[in-house]
Amino acid sequence: MNETIELMMKHRSVRKFKPDPVSDEQLAAIVSAGQMASSSSSVQAYTVIAVTDLEQKAKLAELAGNQAYVNECPVFLVWCADLYRLSDAAKRHLPEKESYADSTENFMVATIDAALASQNAALAAESLGFGIVYIGGLRTRIEEVAELLGLPEGVFPVYGMCIGVADQETGIRPRLPLDAVLHRNRYNAEQSIKGVEQYDETTTAYMKARTNGERTTPWSELMAKRLTEPTRLQVRPFLEGKGFLKR
Amino acid sequence: MNETIELMMKHRSVRKFKPDPVSDEQLAAIVSAGQMASSSSSVQAYTVIAVTDLEQKAKLAELAGNQAYVNECPVFLVWCADLYRLSDAAKRHLPEKESYADSTENFMVATIDAALASQNAALAAESLGFGIVYIGGLRTRIEEVAELLGLPEGVFPVYGMCIGVADQETGIRPRLPLDAVLHRNRYNAEQSIKGVEQYDETTTAYMKARTNGERTTPWSELMAKRLTEPTRLQVRPFLEGKGFLKR
Repeated sequence: MNETIELMMKHRSVRKFKPDPVSDEQLAAIVSAGQMASSSSSVQAYTVIAVTDLEQKAKLAELAGNQAYVNECPVFLVWCADLYRLSDAAKRHLPEKESYADSTENFMVATIDAALASQNAALAAESLGFGIVYIGGLRTRIEEVAELLGLPEGVFPVYGMCIGVADQETGIRPRLPLDAVLHRNRYNAEQSIKGVEQYDETTTAYMKARTNGERTTPWSELMAKRLTEPTRLQVRPFLEGKGFLKR
Repeated sequence: MNETIELMMKHRSVRKFKPDPVSDEQLAAIVSAGQMASSSSSVQAYTVIAVTDLEQKAKLAELAGNQAYVNECPVFLVWCADLYRLSDAAKRHLPEKESYADSTENFMVATIDAALASQNAALAAESLGFGIVYIGGLRTRIEEVAELLGLPEGVFPVYGMCIGVADQETGIRPRLPLDAVLHRNRYNAEQSIKGVEQYDETTTAYMKARTNGERTTPWSELMAKRLTEPTRLQVRPFLEGKGFLKR
């Protein structure tokens, strides 16, 4: 196909890293490539905090649920949705006007901006030979993470990302059948569900092989468990406290 | 650097398309590459609807605020956050249990999953020689868009994306200075703001040149206006109606 698509097709999350560093030049190239992603009306409502300080990284690893790779990776990026710059601009230029930083729309804009930039950065890192993994676990103790990183009102951590040289060989995890996620002209509920049965078989075989027969729960059962667990209900009050999602 | 980073650095949004089609094989390659993006615990909580039907596309162009390029592009993708598959799995496997599809956490997971997949797809399309533009305007009349596409409970349109062969040459829009978005170890509010003044000059010069001197408003002033406009407040009640964001 081409180098870029081939790179994407080879993606797998890396959870074991060699101590080799990511140089400042490489980090700048990775984040600059991230910046080139699209942004809603060019608001660029995100900031990325590169954590290399050993103590800071160790604390984040603990807050993320004792994930050793957060500690081991040479650079841990915290992708933040950020309306702080915009709010500052509003206060300077239009101090008399009401701010809508607390709207669901602006919450989405900032979250999506961070996500698009981070995915470019992830691919840029992989194109330089590094491995990456997203760390959603950073939202579990989100209040403490925000405190540790000194995040002001209008800023919250969307997730973390480990970057480093992979110290493991893992397989490429199969995805849902294309038909399940790609519909034509209208949403097709039957098509959405139909692929799941086939996918349950594919993923069970894959996990069985990867874990020497230990993990055999079908994907749809894992998803059922996941959706019925009261995960991270603390996120909402935290976000409202940071000025988000009030209307 | 390398092909992938070079591709990212050349990105600009395309708003004028040639009638040349995107083949089914190309579309499959683009969305398959999208699927390879990371997904929170492999939930893959998104669906993309490829709109090629002329009538459907024309209606979406109108709903997006009469954006001609939505109509002109050969394929218009609607990226949806989708908890429908997961809710179906929960009902089948754990019918007695309460679902948390309405949590802010799961809203974020689904939105982010859609965003990561879409950014891979955008780059894959660009690597095949196409141009793209994200259409956030699809959230303005979001209820009508959802109705038109037949979106069930648990599914909402995050944004659209035009794909096609570019019929225009546009410049690459400058981004915020790297220092403004890349911080070290802790959030640095001063650094966040310091780059804005310099960026105001850069972008004003860029827009002036692009519009023959017509558009001269500094970026920070545009941002101030944007944040103080009550944009898309209808998104929240719509999302709650689709079963999202209730806690």
